Amino acid sequence: MKSLLATITFATLAFVTFTNAQAQDPLPSWNDGPAKQAILNFVQVTTDKSSPQYVPTEQRIATFDQDGTLWTEHPIYAQVTYCLDRVPAVVKAKPELKNVEPFKTVLTGDRAAIAKLELKDLKTILAATLTGMTTEQFRADVKAWLKTARHPRFDRPYTELIYQPMLEVLKYLRAHGYKTYIVTGGGQDFVRVYAEQVYGIPPEQLVGTIGETKYGYAKDGKPILTKQPKLILNDDKGGKPEGIHMMIGRRPFASFGNTPGDQEMLEYTTAGEGARLGMLVLHDDAKREYAYGPAQGLPETKVGAFPQALYDKAQNRGWFVISMKNDWNRVYPFDK
Amino acid sequence: MKSLLATITFATLAFVTFTNAQAQDPLPSWNDGPAKQAILNFVQVTTDKSSPQYVPTEQRIATFDQDGTLWTEHPIYAQVTYCLDRVPAVVKAKPELKNVEPFKTVLTGDRAAIAKLELKDLKTILAATLTGMTTEQFRADVKAWLKTARHPRFDRPYTELIYQPMLEVLKYLRAHGYKTYIVTGGGQDFVRVYAEQVYGIPPEQLVGTIGETKYGYAKDGKPILTKQPKLILNDDKGGKPEGIHMMIGRRPFASFGNTPGDQEMLEYTTAGEGARLGMLVLHDDAKREYAYGPAQGLPETKVGAFPQALYDKAQNRGWFVISMKNDWNRVYPFDK
Repeated sequence: MKSLLATITFATLAFVTFTNAQAQDPLPSWNDGPAKQAILNFVQVTTDKSSPQYVPTEQRIATFDQDGTLWTEHPIYAQVTYCLDRVPAVVKAKPELKNVEPFKTVLTGDRAAIAKLELKDLKTILAATLTGMTTEQFRADVKAWLKTARHPRFDRPYTELIYQPMLEVLKYLRAHGYKTYIVTGGGQDFVRVYAEQVYGIPPEQLVGTIGETKYGYAKDGKPILTKQPKLILNDDKGGKPEGIHMMIGRRPFASFGNTPGDQEMLEYTTAGEGARLGMLVLHDDAKREYAYGPAQGLPETKVGAFPQALYDKAQNRGWFVISMKNDWNRVYPFDK
Repeated sequence: MKSLLATITFATLAFVTFTNAQAQDPLPSWNDGPAKQAILNFVQVTTDKSSPQYVPTEQRIATFDQDGTLWTEHPIYAQVTYCLDRVPAVVKAKPELKNVEPFKTVLTGDRAAIAKLELKDLKTILAATLTGMTTEQFRADVKAWLKTARHPRFDRPYTELIYQPMLEVLKYLRAHGYKTYIVTGGGQDFVRVYAEQVYGIPPEQLVGTIGETKYGYAKDGKPILTKQPKLILNDDKGGKPEGIHMMIGRRPFASFGNTPGDQEMLEYTTAGEGARLGMLVLHDDAKREYAYGPAQGLPETKVGAFPQALYDKAQNRGWFVISMKNDWNRVYPFDK
């Protein structure tokens, strides 16, 4: 027998539950769908003590690729732009480089010519602009650059071109005891300069491509660390699990990426026991950000390509592909 | 005018303050003296918001050497004993090594002969026993060894030969928002196996000597990381600040060591602005632990030497030398 009171009570309860859920949605920039549901479900089953997939707090590790996963990587990686922008200062300090390639081409400012530089030229520029100075000088240089540099399309600082939905995931995971790490092919020291302020990720939770430093003394006797042109870790592909082992020493429970450079990280993460979460961002939103694949017939690209093979592997492995267009109702924090 | 009431009130207050201080002494195994006072004072001035030397929580980093600073390193480093103990298993897997030096000598079990092995022999043994397996196999091996191995003098597991006063410092610092790191010349993967349980220091806060790992797949397709015979970081001397930069990315505010291998870490730490703390453990207690220098006329040693030059530098730099004999009223947790 259903009494009127019971009906009213049920209706009230349902209403209360509904409004609480609305008020407390931890991922408001995510549209309802399998991706959002996967994140909510993962956090629920790994943090509920009564769940068979419960994960003790100290083991809660989540790793995020940076370029293309947490912020915009098109038309070209911000760090590469930084390096190109540094060339005049490098040539000023070493004028003999003025007529030497690839510095000569970069100095012309001719974007089409610069875009044609080969990988070995780019490496020469990276070495010249990312090494030779103290870690503190480098930090100060990057900090100054970030204040003035603007993204060519959005005319905003690079640090504003971060994905609001991913900020919500980072915050949501941390609120549930997860330590959030960036695991990036980008330079560790470069990303450290802004990651704490922009993502709430401190320097010690930054696994990047790592160059050697050398301990020594300045003229005044003060200890200094000088950046060397020698790689300790190339933090891309297989280097990602290697960097995770070195810097964290535990297998992550969740990993987020967007290219084949993140594939090994997702493999390593999701091969662990219990509930694991692997997710890949697909850039299919030319209007609000960019659209590139070539997966799913999206345009080809040289920067951050997402091939169909990776898409197929994701289906196979139970990784979720996040459609920027369909899964996100907001891309940037400044979007309405 | 002093009324009786005022006198009683004052006496009561003094008594309350005294008993609270007793009850709340965070470093009960430390005798009163400059070392204990320096630790209490450092924490006070860096964590009191009204202090000009206040340090924001996210910057509170403290680093500790491991062998000889947190646990006993005599008569020989535990990790070296582990490697020697592993030799029979290595030879069983590769019988051709049976008659090859230095394996042949180690297999005899003749301690005097083993003690005479040269550095290059020791390196051969370290490479054979610390590399070639997956990170998970290594972890399991070390875990099993720690359960059965006994210290030759104290006849206890190595993990019990930890310094109670240092456990109190670790706990006290953490209670005041400091992140505590181990920065050791020992193997990162080796120390990680017990550091969390023994010191409350998780794997991600372990900066050690780091060997390369290689990502690959087991026969069943499962991702594995295999330990390679190639060093990424020799975490001793200048390598300590380099490792700190790589793994933490911030300059510590406090550092604890016990040999010239820790000197650069203390230099780097104490060269920073604001209140910084540098401390060195001097092993001058032959009765409860060991006594070795040669600083202060203590006996010479091949393991963990503390030369007079380091002692003099400590005086010069304002680093504190902890006398195990005088500053600690208890050495091990099992001491009465």
